[in-house]
Amino acid sequence: MLTMLRLSAISLAAVLALPAHAQFRKPEDAIHYRQAVMTTMGNHFYARLGAMANGRIPFDPHLAVENAEITVMLSKLPWNAFPVGSEGTPSKAKSSVWAEQEKFKDLSEKMQAEMAKLLATAKTGNLDNYRLAYRATGNACKACHDHFTTE
Amino acid sequence: MLTMLRLSAISLAAVLALPAHAQFRKPEDAIHYRQAVMTTMGNHFYARLGAMANGRIPFDPHLAVENAEITVMLSKLPWNAFPVGSEGTPSKAKSSVWAEQEKFKDLSEKMQAEMAKLLATAKTGNLDNYRLAYRATGNACKACHDHFTTE
Repeated sequence: MLTMLRLSAISLAAVLALPAHAQFRKPEDAIHYRQAVMTTMGNHFYARLGAMANGRIPFDPHLAVENAEITVMLSKLPWNAFPVGSEGTPSKAKSSVWAEQEKFKDLSEKMQAEMAKLLATAKTGNLDNYRLAYRATGNACKACHDHFTTE
Repeated sequence: MLTMLRLSAISLAAVLALPAHAQFRKPEDAIHYRQAVMTTMGNHFYARLGAMANGRIPFDPHLAVENAEITVMLSKLPWNAFPVGSEGTPSKAKSSVWAEQEKFKDLSEKMQAEMAKLLATAKTGNLDNYRLAYRATGNACKACHDHFTTE
């Protein structure tokens, strides 16, 4: 577990160390990328992990771990995709993303931390704890979207 | 490594075992999801892994492994998102996806296998082999897109 955490920290640092222009040629590319990550993460979070948390499908710890591993990986990706100037349609990001970078970073990190806890909880196979972790993660998503997006 | 492979096989089976309607309420949801996965995978494949294979940015084995882990995970996801009826705009999938399911499955599995080899090659840190594996993976992507999509 510690090795995993260490690897994860190194990997994330490597991703964040690359300048955005190495990954995105145009602001629109960054917008499409971050929206694609959010769409994929949202699907696994709400339609898979949420379906189990809310009892729409039976709780299957293996499936919960599988999906939480996907969302944990995806939760690390969008933050390099907000270069200055990547505002406006089709993005729903408010200009506060760039004006309040510290708060944006703080809320994005809280979401990532909750997502990691959700994975840890899924691994224990305890449905009650899983439900609590799911709700906490959903609230962390919502806190950031409420403040930084127009939807 | 063997444990990882076993876990991966179990997890993939779990994903594929879930009926599509558990994840997608409408055909459009499946289309948006699979396009989002492809956009995310394409960005990490071409703009990150490809940039290193083609010398646009220096080859960094840690960064290559990080990105190949992302593309390997994403390479497993789209195949559950082709329910019957999920054709037409904005999808670029031809009707042959549903008419030639065996070929579609075969080409999708070849791509996943090449992507896994690309990750293994990145882990060795050998740039020449990494370049060869990158090209083989790109060809596997292309073979499927040439036959099954309108672009």
